Amino acid sequence: MEKIVEQNLLFDFYGELLTEHQRNVYRDAVCNDMSLSEVAEEYGISRQGVHDLLKRCDKILQDYEDKLRLIRRFDAIGEKLEEIRSLSGEQEDILKLTEEIREQL
Amino acid sequence: MEKIVEQNLLFDFYGELLTEHQRNVYRDAVCNDMSLSEVAEEYGISRQGVHDLLKRCDKILQDYEDKLRLIRRFDAIGEKLEEIRSLSGEQEDILKLTEEIREQL
Repeated sequence: MEKIVEQNLLFDFYGELLTEHQRNVYRDAVCNDMSLSEVAEEYGISRQGVHDLLKRCDKILQDYEDKLRLIRRFDAIGEKLEEIRSLSGEQEDILKLTEEIREQL
Repeated sequence: MEKIVEQNLLFDFYGELLTEHQRNVYRDAVCNDMSLSEVAEEYGISRQGVHDLLKRCDKILQDYEDKLRLIRRFDAIGEKLEEIRSLSGEQEDILKLTEEIREQL
């Protein structure tokens, strides 16, 4: 998986477990694709500080995934929901329920 | 929900995020229902120490649930899976897939 995609996914799942400051910086730099210089200016820290913070957050987020494996588990559930959809014979209420489950993932 | 049931559920979901020591003590005292004295002797700490550790762990686990809401989300998914099962007209392969999803939760 491309690094930026993986970072966004990890942030979606575990971003709430970062501190507010980490979360804001990470969101701007990774999810909103701002440059290190822009983020550094925004938060009044050095570019090196931003770089270090992002690296630390990458590790924190990856550690959570290594322990909880939510991304892996939710991915497997998504695949099985697809199978249910194709086996359902387009049954409207089953399709709707699979959509609702997707929203919980 | 009864406290012991809730503690077991929280431990199932977030136990991996405790330290190994916290996890062992919590598992023995809460999941294996050992007395404070037994656990204290087992780990060479005081009964008060066990009590404090359990209280701290309860808070840590609850904080994770407050942030990630996995129990609430997985519970909602479980209910929708039940609905899919009853709508599936006993279709064997759909029932099997809902079982497999349950195992991921």
